[in-house]
Amino acid sequence: MGVVCLNCARAYPESGVPYRCPRCGGLFDDLEPVIWHDPDPTQPGIWRYWRSLHNQGIRVSLGEGQTPLVDALVAGRRVFFKCEYANPTGSFKDRGSATLISVLSARGVVDAVEDSSGNAGASFAAYAARSGMRARVFVPDSASGLKRRQIEAYGAELVPVPGSRSDTVAAALRASEQGAVYASHAHLPFNLTGYATAAFEIVEQLSAVPGAVLAPTGQGGLLLGMARGFLGLKQAGAIDRVPKLVGVQAVACAPLAACFEIGINGLDLVTEGKTLAEGVRVRNPLRLQSVVSSVRESGGCFVTVDESDILPGRDSLARLGFYVEPTSALVWKGLQLVVEQLPDPVVVILTGSGHKWARN
Amino acid sequence: MGVVCLNCARAYPESGVPYRCPRCGGLFDDLEPVIWHDPDPTQPGIWRYWRSLHNQGIRVSLGEGQTPLVDALVAGRRVFFKCEYANPTGSFKDRGSATLISVLSARGVVDAVEDSSGNAGASFAAYAARSGMRARVFVPDSASGLKRRQIEAYGAELVPVPGSRSDTVAAALRASEQGAVYASHAHLPFNLTGYATAAFEIVEQLSAVPGAVLAPTGQGGLLLGMARGFLGLKQAGAIDRVPKLVGVQAVACAPLAACFEIGINGLDLVTEGKTLAEGVRVRNPLRLQSVVSSVRESGGCFVTVDESDILPGRDSLARLGFYVEPTSALVWKGLQLVVEQLPDPVVVILTGSGHKWARN
Ligand SMILES: [Zn+2]
Ligand SMILES: [Zn+2]
Repeated sequence: MGVVCLNCARAYPESGVPYRCPRCGGLFDDLEPVIWHDPDPTQPGIWRYWRSLHNQGIRVSLGEGQTPLVDALVAGRRVFFKCEYANPTGSFKDRGSATLISVLSARGVVDAVEDSSGNAGASFAAYAARSGMRARVFVPDSASGLKRRQIEAYGAELVPVPGSRSDTVAAALRASEQGAVYASHAHLPFNLTGYATAAFEIVEQLSAVPGAVLAPTGQGGLLLGMARGFLGLKQAGAIDRVPKLVGVQAVACAPLAACFEIGINGLDLVTEGKTLAEGVRVRNPLRLQSVVSSVRESGGCFVTVDESDILPGRDSLARLGFYVEPTSALVWKGLQLVVEQLPDPVVVILTGSGHKWARN
Repeated sequence: MGVVCLNCARAYPESGVPYRCPRCGGLFDDLEPVIWHDPDPTQPGIWRYWRSLHNQGIRVSLGEGQTPLVDALVAGRRVFFKCEYANPTGSFKDRGSATLISVLSARGVVDAVEDSSGNAGASFAAYAARSGMRARVFVPDSASGLKRRQIEAYGAELVPVPGSRSDTVAAALRASEQGAVYASHAHLPFNLTGYATAAFEIVEQLSAVPGAVLAPTGQGGLLLGMARGFLGLKQAGAIDRVPKLVGVQAVACAPLAACFEIGINGLDLVTEGKTLAEGVRVRNPLRLQSVVSSVRESGGCFVTVDESDILPGRDSLARLGFYVEPTSALVWKGLQLVVEQLPDPVVVILTGSGHKWARN
């Protein structure tokens, strides 16, 4: 148990932070179950649940977690919105950065790189700054201005890379071969326990288990982490079932939905189209099988949202007082598509702040 | 007691929401003391303190309050940063909007106007949307894009007004004469109890009374509200003294500092210069005497920060992981100027998000 290679079962090394298995190139996952323990009310944010986190002592924190759960009437139903945009850098990624950068810090990392121009990049930059690491963020040179500005403000070095998204990844990997740690939110499993805390908070805030939880889904790390959190609650007897997990993807790029509906062969049909929901434009989610299984076991599903429904969803949410970016706004139409099949109470995750996006 | 005109002592009317005394034009204040009562852990955000709020039953909430208190080493001192940018619309104003718009909603208001293009305008727009009010925000036609965009997203009507700041106020007043309520954050006292909750949270989060609290200061509502919160804690015996309150102003426009140092005649010398700290550019704070008295009684002071120190302060804060706008960043230099005279623990209020500002 613990962190192991999903391909060859090799245990994660005691030192260093390889982003994939040094023996076989496989993906690491943290298979130590997340166990619900009584929260510690003296600790802030996600650290309220420190007994459930697989944390080695060092905490890198900016006040992540304990975000508001705010209800609103949507088509006559009382729906609960989990306002993850209230996290320190404006997105849910901060839960995962806190646990991930804590691991890096405990392992003595002083130089790290990432390759996201979005919420993950901004979150990485902030937590790296907090821990005193040197941080470089490789981004496609087409990346938009607002998030670049945020990344640079934290003192991270922003390295624009000409070419495609995979050229950006390649540049980050080259830097990691020269000694920096590749702090990949997608490859490393250390953020997943951080995401489990969202499940803990929802159950505590509702004083009940939700009937369903919807979230915009790209890599699927948030859904997977929450699934593990709900399972930990169930195994401890704190809840009697896991809520239906619903992943919302953009029609333009919906590999998880395709795999869920058609099986692994469905992936051949998946496009990587341009979408306003840039934060979930992930053609090949690394943990695809785990995410799809978790959703299936929960009794949930995936739904896909047309491009033309994204901005109206964003406007509808804002008119309830929830200011989110287009990626987050996927959940509005996603909710309409499935709400009648979902048991109460329904929780919708609002993943990222509206401040990070400017209409062109 | 209760809400009365500071000039003629007339009680606030039972119905309607006049922004100033209908008899004499005086300013209303809420003179009912803020009393610390045991918090209610079942209620979220500022409503944890509902027993201390002068609330008439209706709550308009978007999850404001219970923001993180994060410590960092600053020049060898452990300083605590209260991250108000984590509020729902990105600034401390949300505490005040929650209590202010709750009063309006309880009084049946369906049409309200404001005249701020800054954090107060965005916060007003969000809480008006939440409560289902029609909202119009009058702004100088020179107001910057990012906050305008946020105000409009919430569904408020943005009304650009040519001319000066006072032309904008005049336009809002004309609208209020035609039936809308002027929901002025500056005139109405109903936001002040909301700000008192920041004091409550700080004491709970520290499990101690701070030695000093610094905040960027324009109208001074936040300082005044916090002063009342700390007094309520002291009168209830929960703390044994009120912390030194330190208001930080920009040199370009520092009427509170002038009045504090020189007395009321100092106001004649005050400029209304251009400053990056737009959020505290208030030439004539309405509650000047109350704010100055509260700061003096606390044993605190005002400090002023040069224009050239604002952006470096913003960068220094971001490099600790705190992403704030220039107005907030005033506190960085302000802290350096007085920290040696301040007893531990020192708390610094980070009032607004860095997302709302774009370097030109
Ligand atoms: Zn392997
Ligand atoms: Zn009067």
